[in-house]
Amino acid sequence: MTGHSSPNPAKPRIASTMGKAAIFSEALPFIAQFRGGAVVIKYGGSAMVDDLLRGTFADDVAMLHYVGINPIIVHGGGRHISEAMGRQSIESEWIEGLRVTDEHAMRVVQATLVGEINPDIVRLINNHGSVAAGVSGLDANLFVAEPVDERLGFVGRIIEVNTGLVEGLQSQGYVPVVAPIARGIDGKTYNVNADVAASALATALGASKLVYLTDVEGLYRDLGDEGSLISRITVSELAELIEGGSVSAGMLPKLRSAVSAIDGGVGQVHILDGRMQHAVLLEIFTPEGIGTMITREQQP
Amino acid sequence: MTGHSSPNPAKPRIASTMGKAAIFSEALPFIAQFRGGAVVIKYGGSAMVDDLLRGTFADDVAMLHYVGINPIIVHGGGRHISEAMGRQSIESEWIEGLRVTDEHAMRVVQATLVGEINPDIVRLINNHGSVAAGVSGLDANLFVAEPVDERLGFVGRIIEVNTGLVEGLQSQGYVPVVAPIARGIDGKTYNVNADVAASALATALGASKLVYLTDVEGLYRDLGDEGSLISRITVSELAELIEGGSVSAGMLPKLRSAVSAIDGGVGQVHILDGRMQHAVLLEIFTPEGIGTMITREQQP
Amino acid sequence: MTGHSSPNPAKPRIASTMGKAAIFSEALPFIAQFRGGAVVIKYGGSAMVDDLLRGTFADDVAMLHYVGINPIIVHGGGRHISEAMGRQSIESEWIEGLRVTDEHAMRVVQATLVGEINPDIVRLINNHGSVAAGVSGLDANLFVAEPVDERLGFVGRIIEVNTGLVEGLQSQGYVPVVAPIARGIDGKTYNVNADVAASALATALGASKLVYLTDVEGLYRDLGDEGSLISRITVSELAELIEGGSVSAGMLPKLRSAVSAIDGGVGQVHILDGRMQHAVLLEIFTPEGIGTMITREQQP
Amino acid sequence: MTGHSSPNPAKPRIASTMGKAAIFSEALPFIAQFRGGAVVIKYGGSAMVDDLLRGTFADDVAMLHYVGINPIIVHGGGRHISEAMGRQSIESEWIEGLRVTDEHAMRVVQATLVGEINPDIVRLINNHGSVAAGVSGLDANLFVAEPVDERLGFVGRIIEVNTGLVEGLQSQGYVPVVAPIARGIDGKTYNVNADVAASALATALGASKLVYLTDVEGLYRDLGDEGSLISRITVSELAELIEGGSVSAGMLPKLRSAVSAIDGGVGQVHILDGRMQHAVLLEIFTPEGIGTMITREQQP
Amino acid sequence: MTGHSSPNPAKPRIASTMGKAAIFSEALPFIAQFRGGAVVIKYGGSAMVDDLLRGTFADDVAMLHYVGINPIIVHGGGRHISEAMGRQSIESEWIEGLRVTDEHAMRVVQATLVGEINPDIVRLINNHGSVAAGVSGLDANLFVAEPVDERLGFVGRIIEVNTGLVEGLQSQGYVPVVAPIARGIDGKTYNVNADVAASALATALGASKLVYLTDVEGLYRDLGDEGSLISRITVSELAELIEGGSVSAGMLPKLRSAVSAIDGGVGQVHILDGRMQHAVLLEIFTPEGIGTMITREQQP
Amino acid sequence: MTGHSSPNPAKPRIASTMGKAAIFSEALPFIAQFRGGAVVIKYGGSAMVDDLLRGTFADDVAMLHYVGINPIIVHGGGRHISEAMGRQSIESEWIEGLRVTDEHAMRVVQATLVGEINPDIVRLINNHGSVAAGVSGLDANLFVAEPVDERLGFVGRIIEVNTGLVEGLQSQGYVPVVAPIARGIDGKTYNVNADVAASALATALGASKLVYLTDVEGLYRDLGDEGSLISRITVSELAELIEGGSVSAGMLPKLRSAVSAIDGGVGQVHILDGRMQHAVLLEIFTPEGIGTMITREQQP
Repeated sequence: MTGHSSPNPAKPRIASTMGKAAIFSEALPFIAQFRGGAVVIKYGGSAMVDDLLRGTFADDVAMLHYVGINPIIVHGGGRHISEAMGRQSIESEWIEGLRVTDEHAMRVVQATLVGEINPDIVRLINNHGSVAAGVSGLDANLFVAEPVDERLGFVGRIIEVNTGLVEGLQSQGYVPVVAPIARGIDGKTYNVNADVAASALATALGASKLVYLTDVEGLYRDLGDEGSLISRITVSELAELIEGGSVSAGMLPKLRSAVSAIDGGVGQVHILDGRMQHAVLLEIFTPEGIGTMITREQQP
Repeated sequence: MTGHSSPNPAKPRIASTMGKAAIFSEALPFIAQFRGGAVVIKYGGSAMVDDLLRGTFADDVAMLHYVGINPIIVHGGGRHISEAMGRQSIESEWIEGLRVTDEHAMRVVQATLVGEINPDIVRLINNHGSVAAGVSGLDANLFVAEPVDERLGFVGRIIEVNTGLVEGLQSQGYVPVVAPIARGIDGKTYNVNADVAASALATALGASKLVYLTDVEGLYRDLGDEGSLISRITVSELAELIEGGSVSAGMLPKLRSAVSAIDGGVGQVHILDGRMQHAVLLEIFTPEGIGTMITREQQP
Repeated sequence: MTGHSSPNPAKPRIASTMGKAAIFSEALPFIAQFRGGAVVIKYGGSAMVDDLLRGTFADDVAMLHYVGINPIIVHGGGRHISEAMGRQSIESEWIEGLRVTDEHAMRVVQATLVGEINPDIVRLINNHGSVAAGVSGLDANLFVAEPVDERLGFVGRIIEVNTGLVEGLQSQGYVPVVAPIARGIDGKTYNVNADVAASALATALGASKLVYLTDVEGLYRDLGDEGSLISRITVSELAELIEGGSVSAGMLPKLRSAVSAIDGGVGQVHILDGRMQHAVLLEIFTPEGIGTMITREQQP
Repeated sequence: MTGHSSPNPAKPRIASTMGKAAIFSEALPFIAQFRGGAVVIKYGGSAMVDDLLRGTFADDVAMLHYVGINPIIVHGGGRHISEAMGRQSIESEWIEGLRVTDEHAMRVVQATLVGEINPDIVRLINNHGSVAAGVSGLDANLFVAEPVDERLGFVGRIIEVNTGLVEGLQSQGYVPVVAPIARGIDGKTYNVNADVAASALATALGASKLVYLTDVEGLYRDLGDEGSLISRITVSELAELIEGGSVSAGMLPKLRSAVSAIDGGVGQVHILDGRMQHAVLLEIFTPEGIGTMITREQQP
Repeated sequence: MTGHSSPNPAKPRIASTMGKAAIFSEALPFIAQFRGGAVVIKYGGSAMVDDLLRGTFADDVAMLHYVGINPIIVHGGGRHISEAMGRQSIESEWIEGLRVTDEHAMRVVQATLVGEINPDIVRLINNHGSVAAGVSGLDANLFVAEPVDERLGFVGRIIEVNTGLVEGLQSQGYVPVVAPIARGIDGKTYNVNADVAASALATALGASKLVYLTDVEGLYRDLGDEGSLISRITVSELAELIEGGSVSAGMLPKLRSAVSAIDGGVGQVHILDGRMQHAVLLEIFTPEGIGTMITREQQP
Repeated sequence: MTGHSSPNPAKPRIASTMGKAAIFSEALPFIAQFRGGAVVIKYGGSAMVDDLLRGTFADDVAMLHYVGINPIIVHGGGRHISEAMGRQSIESEWIEGLRVTDEHAMRVVQATLVGEINPDIVRLINNHGSVAAGVSGLDANLFVAEPVDERLGFVGRIIEVNTGLVEGLQSQGYVPVVAPIARGIDGKTYNVNADVAASALATALGASKLVYLTDVEGLYRDLGDEGSLISRITVSELAELIEGGSVSAGMLPKLRSAVSAIDGGVGQVHILDGRMQHAVLLEIFTPEGIGTMITREQQP
């Protein structure tokens, strides 16, 4: 493969290729700022199911990897799990809005996250130029959890993150792809929330950025008004926004995880629209950015 | 935790503890011989489903790991896959004795191997003192395969083994647990035979030993005579035995993989009875050994 | 500095930013191909004197550096040296088309290359995000030369390249900027041709690419016809072209160095138009490429 | 050498070999606890002169070494030195219970410890599968001492321990065997007490355990009553025991060194019966332990 | 090359060679004291222009290098710059005793320091057995400066020293030769005082010694009395001497830099007579020393 | 300690100190040639028993060590062993000119070499600025030997040299001091000839030089004529000399070992007069050299 494919007429080509080069130049200061750091990406929603978006996401991961901004993927699995539950006619019981996860359901969750979604992402990234390695929260005890509430069964709260395996994979040049399950303190497998797991891992790794790929454009000052998209917000402004009720219920867990990551030392948290092609790259490589960026109070 | 639990009366205790110590002494020359090398263990059969045997297997892995004989586990999944197929009412078509694996069946195979069996083994080993990390054949392109026969669908023949990830995990002190699927040259997931995968990995790693845990005592000179168990056999004697028809059909693929491993430089291949507690340790740590050992012609 | 500068109206922005992202995607396979290798760039002509071109060149160097394609700059100095000679009223004597370099002239050459041009390039690159370190051919005996012809004085032919210093600088993350003078076997300073020095260094380093930044668009099949620009040519085709007389005299030394580099194992040599902004990046990062690429006979 | 020696009848063999395996399993948690740490063993008494005990001691050292519990041997030399003194008709003068060591006597002590006992232990261990390297307290100034009392001549008190050489040997996989002499601050050789030297070295190395191999079963609550053997005692209980006069005079220096080691951060000190085969291994590898273990007040 | 050149008559030769050996012995304690440390040498004056002295200086640098006392050379350039200014008929304007350095003058300064003097020293040292690498203050932003006074133009005060490049060169076994210019905070080149630059670099490197090679014998208690040469002085005694007016105006900047280095942690500063052959070696390797040594108050 | 001890009158001092410096300069090319290599020194004779010579020898070792020429000392022990034999009234039996070494005699030999001479040399060197570590041929199985002739008892011929321990000590900055005993293939201790051991070790280490410190000036062309001292000789000339009978019987074993070392790749072997102070340093550091140098035929 080479940079030469066809002897096109020179002049018009030059115009457009020069435009291309300018875009690389524009990205330089952002690459300079973030290279050498780690970026944890919570991968889910449309970006994980739409084939075109899957491809551009894998390209973005490869590009980050190439410029020395180390990506770590933490994936969710909501839709797949529900489908798998359905296929096996498992009916869910709910307590205070949380699904009870008994042993049978936990096996389905594990099989879906670790055995379906995770290897598919690994394969996808390996098709796009990087070399990924799948990791479950059980591997080398990456995530250790305690039960949230014994009535809920195998639903866990992460109490320990052992980053040795993930850091080892990074230092050998692999892109870690993480399935959000955990080893319980009783030695059994627990289900953990993927948004929270991404935040906990970003904090433990001292990541520069934590990126949530969602199916919304970002946060809005006024939920009904698309023009009120917030480009940048501090954690204290975010607290006011939440108190003011301007945040959708579905977004709340992400935002709490975001605040927790910022408090734990992560530089920036981003709520990006995963329905947009190359969302991650655009956020990091372009001066205009996209989505909503959450930062601590005083930006240094 | 310490070496002191109770103030037992001294004399009778001493007699038995001295017996214990003699057993460690007996193991010394075998540890000296194999430490620093790698031992690939094909894990399957009763040893993988019986709870007591699972525990003693995990103990054996820990003990090997502690004495510097690096274990790598390659697991199968026959029974679990059949059960999963059944649960989802998938009926199998057969061509010349091989099951056709279409895309749906392949997803069930992958989910079962990577999402059920593999994490369970990782968790098991982590409960017994070592630190395991699960690896699928897709991770870092560990196994690359081509289709065996296009009518069979996603059934693959391994054509490339990339050991970097497995060696990296070992050098960081983790025990790799490998699920036998492969990345096809078309970028899709392929099912590969676990016995063959274990042999290919042992060869690529330059392992000292390849161990098959089976549900038989070993090879017999005379299939019907339990007293004719073969303790040790060379690959040429094995060829005669096969030609003579004294080998059960089910054992043939293992034996072919064994010969291939020996030809590829693996020191010794063992057919062990996984129904026996601590089968692996007994083979390696005791002078009498167990099961059948296959070696090349001239033992140096 | 961050990826967020202003809350622009969303929609039109997205269109253009998505275009940007596509350009990064397009570059991925080329980055994948060349990262980890070294690219020696002979820097001279307009690209070295025009302020705008100097800036875009420094950006290109930074971008290569960031994606792991290690740039080494070898600069010339023709115009500056002539000016310096003029300022000091040194008149040159010529023998068979080559300028005689006596001790006084050599001091002016050294002062100009090592004391004017080299530090200016170092400063330029350090302004654009990478960290450069200047190296003269005397440092750590990088270039050792013998006299070309004793009547010519201190004009040298490189007979030894000691790459230790340059490789050490690269491994510490610096961009080496090399001034083409050499240590004579008599311990004195010699002037060496920059095109030849770039080729010798690329060969000694086992570079993937050697890039000549010139003030022409590339090679033409027919010297008078701009439409006959050659996109790609093998060294044997190049030999025919030279025999056919279709090459300008000024281009001959570059082409001989190019052939020598290819023979010495360098993958590709490029004749690029340094008058075009971002010429280096466009060559390496875009599928259409620019200028003329010289390769060996059989491309693997 | 291999794990296969004879085709014994299978069934009875299995019973006993399974018993063997259980013993390895039992040892696992203790190995897990102590591997990676260092164990300093004061070697002396019967274990150093009885041929059978010498062999089982060397086996124990090899086994510890194999499972990653790094043994360091510090040997004494009482009986040999007395014999050597006798052979050369040196008569000892005594001041307050301590033998005066003049220059001649010191030469005999040095020759015996460094030239007789130390190489013999090195040779012994090398016969049993590990690779030992002898070290005297003079080597790399391991032990530096000041005179205890000038009337006593070359009897020293250790004031400095330089562990670099010992740690270097360990990191290269050798078992250090240490002869307890020291470099005086006057540059001459001094005799130091082996029990004290073992304690000082264990403290300087941050060892997990310090083991004294003696010719008694351990400590007794009641000196005359064999049934009163103490399995475990804290340093404060030990202080009471000493005050209560229940300790033999010969044991006092060992106990003071033990307290000093515990105070200096060593985890556990053991008084073991070196007359028992495999005493060291039994202490570390079996749940019942043997002898007396001394710990600090609060066990974490 | 070997230690054998001729079969001289033995006896008289032995007498003199034994004298030689005694001189090496005498140097041992000084080598033992300073090896492993760094010695920054401000190189200038006669030692830099006299051919004989240049050779013995290069020998001294090699000898220091060989015995593990890492030399770093910082050179000045007063006379050469004045000559170059003269050659180009640049007339200097003066403000309060400091020469105004406009852009043209700065180019001459840079060309002279970086392009004439520095490569000549590199070449000299490479002729004498060590391997030198030239470094300008611009390389890897070694020296960063701010303007001293805007009326003075490009005259800078060092505000930052980045030692990474110099330490990298040392760790690879090269002798760094440093030209005292700096990168301004405006990205332009600034002239910095060589004495001050040597002091700043010695401080940033934590050097054991800073050596000023001058054209005087050292400091005198009484300026007019050659017999009053000061062998050793503390910084507070030095302050008194300066207040007392016994210091020549030309020496003042050196002494202020000396005090600043001592305050910054450099062990000793030396004012040596560079007109003496081997001045550096004699200071460091002989018990009598030469010149004046400046130390902090309490010598430990 | 510093380079300043007293304010001597300046002028006469300078004269002599300048002479000193010249001597260092003279040594430079020899240091440059041999640094980085290893020099094995067979230490014995007067140099090992005379106190003044012992001190200058230790100084030489330190100086070699400081300039990066790694010394390894192999000592003999003839006189001490005879004395020790005498003290214990052991009478020796002789077979064909070789002393029979029974078990008792071997213990005396081991105690003397390892327990008396070796630690004394270690202590001596540690007094003179380097850090030595004693090694016996048993340590890490440095020397493995087979019996020369069973009638001679424990007299061994070296058949294997394991340099790992010695190289490890060197890489940690220690000076190895080696006692010439060996581990027999029967696991017992054997006596080996020190001259041969030095040659075997020099060969195994790939040493640049092997130095024999003797009590003669060197080799003579004519045994009776002191004026016929040979400065330099090739191995083939040496063969002629031996055949011609011009070599004393006592020198023969050294010369055979010398030839063997040269054949094994050692660069130069020296026969030096250890009765001369600083003999080693004078050989290596001065152009005139001393003693006799043995080289292979063609000096490159």
